[in-house]
Amino acid sequence: MDRQQLFPYQQLFDFTTAIFQKIGCSPAESATAAEALIAADLRGIDSHGVARLSGYIRLWEAKRVNAKPDISVEHETPSTAVVNGDSGLGLVVAPYAMKLAISKARNVGTGWVSVNNSNHFGIAGFHAMMALEEDMIGIAMTNASALVAPTFSIERMLGTNPICVAIPAGEEPAFVADLATTTAANGKLEILQRKNQPAPEGWIQDKDGNVSTNAHELKTGGALLPLGGDREHGSHKGYALGAIVDIFSAVLSGANYGPWVPPFPAYVPMPENMPGKGIGHFFGAMRIDAFRPAADFKMHMDKWIHRFRSARSITGQPAVVIPGDPEREANAERLQNGIPLLPAVVSDLKVLAERFETSF
Amino acid sequence: MDRQQLFPYQQLFDFTTAIFQKIGCSPAESATAAEALIAADLRGIDSHGVARLSGYIRLWEAKRVNAKPDISVEHETPSTAVVNGDSGLGLVVAPYAMKLAISKARNVGTGWVSVNNSNHFGIAGFHAMMALEEDMIGIAMTNASALVAPTFSIERMLGTNPICVAIPAGEEPAFVADLATTTAANGKLEILQRKNQPAPEGWIQDKDGNVSTNAHELKTGGALLPLGGDREHGSHKGYALGAIVDIFSAVLSGANYGPWVPPFPAYVPMPENMPGKGIGHFFGAMRIDAFRPAADFKMHMDKWIHRFRSARSITGQPAVVIPGDPEREANAERLQNGIPLLPAVVSDLKVLAERFETSF
Repeated sequence: MDRQQLFPYQQLFDFTTAIFQKIGCSPAESATAAEALIAADLRGIDSHGVARLSGYIRLWEAKRVNAKPDISVEHETPSTAVVNGDSGLGLVVAPYAMKLAISKARNVGTGWVSVNNSNHFGIAGFHAMMALEEDMIGIAMTNASALVAPTFSIERMLGTNPICVAIPAGEEPAFVADLATTTAANGKLEILQRKNQPAPEGWIQDKDGNVSTNAHELKTGGALLPLGGDREHGSHKGYALGAIVDIFSAVLSGANYGPWVPPFPAYVPMPENMPGKGIGHFFGAMRIDAFRPAADFKMHMDKWIHRFRSARSITGQPAVVIPGDPEREANAERLQNGIPLLPAVVSDLKVLAERFETSF
Repeated sequence: MDRQQLFPYQQLFDFTTAIFQKIGCSPAESATAAEALIAADLRGIDSHGVARLSGYIRLWEAKRVNAKPDISVEHETPSTAVVNGDSGLGLVVAPYAMKLAISKARNVGTGWVSVNNSNHFGIAGFHAMMALEEDMIGIAMTNASALVAPTFSIERMLGTNPICVAIPAGEEPAFVADLATTTAANGKLEILQRKNQPAPEGWIQDKDGNVSTNAHELKTGGALLPLGGDREHGSHKGYALGAIVDIFSAVLSGANYGPWVPPFPAYVPMPENMPGKGIGHFFGAMRIDAFRPAADFKMHMDKWIHRFRSARSITGQPAVVIPGDPEREANAERLQNGIPLLPAVVSDLKVLAERFETSF
């Protein structure tokens, strides 16, 4: 097993901010990007945090990420906008777009922003949760490069296309559902790859579309499966959800969609004949008092949460989980005790430190 | 096997309209309700069509459905509203609310309407698709009485809580994803019950939370499972999606939620200590030209559809399906050849005809 070392949040935040400044991001945007990135580590989604910092830097080296983007609003109505991210870090473009959705919600009740010409934005949860402190429901989704085969397909046509919905409560912590529209997120598969363990049936298929439990299958043309796994278990629903994310994020905005979404690893060539600009995101904000008084909503949200928490659970199984609980607990624990990083991630960060003449 | 008899659409529409008028609905509302109800039969979702007409009438007899509702807007902003359905047929309340969402979208780009004090609304697809002819994306969802156990639970806490997203295209027919947030819709289970066939693993559990393939399990305290089936296959995601539908439909509007949602069968007692009014729905409409010119969007939507249709499929499997294709094909075929009804449904309609002194 990999031995993990603990690092204080502040150290990772300062280091990440410094690295983004070194590639030319403004101090404010560097801090925003670092906060968004490390939110993943805090919330226990290790695959999307500082482990990816060197990947973002390689995208900048490959000139696929613009460190000084001129983010702009291409089109808008009172409740909608399309934002052009100018190839900026998704970690910067997404908060810009989410803030715009929030400001529209303040004015007319809801705000909906579709984004083109962006890059990977970290975890959807960070962006959706920006709405919570405004007493709004936040929604964030993004497309991503194709790893997922629709039902009946052997071709990878969709990314793991996550959806996050964050809903404020009263005394209770917020409800935060942040889910890839696949049976299992790619990060879960990466853990099995590192441990050389098989994947459960229903997570992946091989290059010919056969059921497979080989966690390394994606390297030889296999694919992740949509939530549901196979047709009999509703994979056509997971495929439809991933497709909706793709269309809201990219067909509405003018970004690339389906198999044309740019890859995260900078060494993977860009798809040919791309129909749009960069990758796409979609954000929403809904003011709860645009529907009913916030106090009423929160009281009932608390009641909803209490009732679900107290549902009788199966003998030997844990209690029913409110979406967001595990991530919030990880967040509190890691803020206090530090963020565990694998040796490979630590040495990656040390290489970055050396290269950019800073320290880690 | 049950022998099915074919009936022309017009006959079922006229009969259903007549029955709704007999219970006191206005002529216009009767026609709306009939159109919404029989849309299910046309689209091949037999469980939600005229087979349920006698169920709606029993709800009226039990005074749970108000045939002359005074549907009203309780609260609104430029892009949102809460509608009180005054215990009307969901088949009437839902089109009212969807029209309101569409009119708000016309004004400010999008419209979002949460509904309380309603009843079952038929298929989500009928309502969401109202947006298509306006060059808008339509969204419809509803909660329903609890049949679904969240991950780890033995208690039924959620309905099958469907979501429909309807997206216009150009030359291609619209993308229409209409899905229960469970592994399988209850209607699918009812078919197996009629045929006395087992259900696949992952659809249901018994009253103690054990895996079961007995299609009759719900009659003895079992539950449907969220999309994903079990934790390892992502049932926490299906549960989260069902929960989001519940919260948007009922906590935002002031309807009942979770285990307190009123049951469809009129003989099932109402839950105790209900926290809200009736059942809840949620509707959205987004003008596509609130994001980009409609012609651009439609051209790219067509390209999206062509690319997905042409994805290489697994040997021996059908081509990749665009959500909405099977239902549209059923619709065309049934409009031409008639709608097949089971003998039990036909005799149900004959009983209604006799009782209301009309003919079928």
